[in-house]
Amino acid sequence: MPTFQFDEDTSLADAGDGKFRAELPQRWTIDGGRPNGGFLLALLGRAAVEAAGGPGGPHPHPVAATSQYMTAPSVGPAEVRAEVMRRGRTATQVRCLLVQDDEAKVAASFVVGRLAGGDPLWSTESPFALPAPEDCVSMRRMMPPGVTTMRDSIEVRYDPATLFIPAGMDGPEGHASEPAVLRAWLSFADGRPFDPVGLLLAADGLPPAVTGLGLAGWVPTLQLTAYVRGLPAPGPLRVRQSTRVAVDGLLDEVCEVWDDDGRLVAQASQLAAYRPPQG
Amino acid sequence: MPTFQFDEDTSLADAGDGKFRAELPQRWTIDGGRPNGGFLLALLGRAAVEAAGGPGGPHPHPVAATSQYMTAPSVGPAEVRAEVMRRGRTATQVRCLLVQDDEAKVAASFVVGRLAGGDPLWSTESPFALPAPEDCVSMRRMMPPGVTTMRDSIEVRYDPATLFIPAGMDGPEGHASEPAVLRAWLSFADGRPFDPVGLLLAADGLPPAVTGLGLAGWVPTLQLTAYVRGLPAPGPLRVRQSTRVAVDGLLDEVCEVWDDDGRLVAQASQLAAYRPPQG
Repeated sequence: MPTFQFDEDTSLADAGDGKFRAELPQRWTIDGGRPNGGFLLALLGRAAVEAAGGPGGPHPHPVAATSQYMTAPSVGPAEVRAEVMRRGRTATQVRCLLVQDDEAKVAASFVVGRLAGGDPLWSTESPFALPAPEDCVSMRRMMPPGVTTMRDSIEVRYDPATLFIPAGMDGPEGHASEPAVLRAWLSFADGRPFDPVGLLLAADGLPPAVTGLGLAGWVPTLQLTAYVRGLPAPGPLRVRQSTRVAVDGLLDEVCEVWDDDGRLVAQASQLAAYRPPQG
Repeated sequence: MPTFQFDEDTSLADAGDGKFRAELPQRWTIDGGRPNGGFLLALLGRAAVEAAGGPGGPHPHPVAATSQYMTAPSVGPAEVRAEVMRRGRTATQVRCLLVQDDEAKVAASFVVGRLAGGDPLWSTESPFALPAPEDCVSMRRMMPPGVTTMRDSIEVRYDPATLFIPAGMDGPEGHASEPAVLRAWLSFADGRPFDPVGLLLAADGLPPAVTGLGLAGWVPTLQLTAYVRGLPAPGPLRVRQSTRVAVDGLLDEVCEVWDDDGRLVAQASQLAAYRPPQG
């Protein structure tokens, strides 16, 4: 089995009593600063699975995950505390905290169960359309060189119809036609296949779709909820994220994730804070 | 000020140290049994607002709420424990437990802030179409007489195009054309206007839209997330709830709530468990 970066980066050292030591790496930060919320959710999800009996136990998959972000954690060591709230027949429910400097920075709770990869009893939709990966746009070339961020760890290729390119920047044709949506292909840079824990990352893998709304600066997530609905097929994921309403300094981001077999494998939503545009 | 039933039923007796005593009434049960999840979320939301400084404080409105249901609580006394995780400038973050018989039955967390009732910076959509209330169908007449349930406390009038009527029951024309969606008007039976805490109830005010899928029996919610996006205008709410995927014993329910002024005032999603249909 090859070792992938994401698995190393989300590895936990068991410190007993439901406590784990983790190391938050530069590789999963946004623009070189704060660790990405989806990465943190995946890290806590691994702790929740461990608390539920581990990947070899009866409940190996996080199926529902929700996290609240009190203070953005920093790169470096952190402690994860996992508390089993209930062990049931079909699911184990776990509450987690991510603690740094004696402060709880992220609180999360999980329903950990088992996805069987069965055929859906019901499914309303087919995946949204997306141009072929080679006709989509990677953002990595727009980043300043030398700064290690999440964009080195996952490959995101955006549908150009959903990209807003600020004036003066070199962008593709057809941008900003849809101001509050992003559609993209998502894959791990090192080819790691997606699994339920990886889907927790994918559920927050795109930035907020807000540049077209005139919003700049940090759009901190307050709350993130993700449901993992299937065992993803090999291959890149299709991710769509859109904002329905931005009002009173708060905006939603609704996300759906489809696998290469055309199955809806994750659903997510977030509530984030924004500062109104100037002028 | 008139006293409304919902306010009485969600009232809390402050027991100090972030603890509150509550009484779960028969009036908010589903089919006479377990208290409704949205009612519990609203009750815990009131505790979260109290912990954040109360309705007269700087953060009077629950804006994000998520709850996990470990064991269905019973009608009767309960204790609510609220723990402030962080007091920030724009929001207070609170974690709550609902405890009965020394067992934590519901865990919830809240972002409590202030909705200003401003004009949206961005809004993607207009409300879905719904026939006039007098052309919609109340389910109260289908309930056995003498059983007090939530259906006595809120008035739900369903769009007949979304109603599935089992064989042998007296139903309206045009049923079951859309099998995994319900659309309805929602109002309090005693005319109480909706507010942010009331919207937490509305976000789980409809039953699962699953009868058309051949599912019968209890569809217990594992996790429920609701975002309150606005201060609702007076008048009934329009609520749409739909299931996108049912697979591996788990189904989602995605809910949106619009007010009488055509604003999206709440968004919600749940993950629930089901038993596959027989035969």
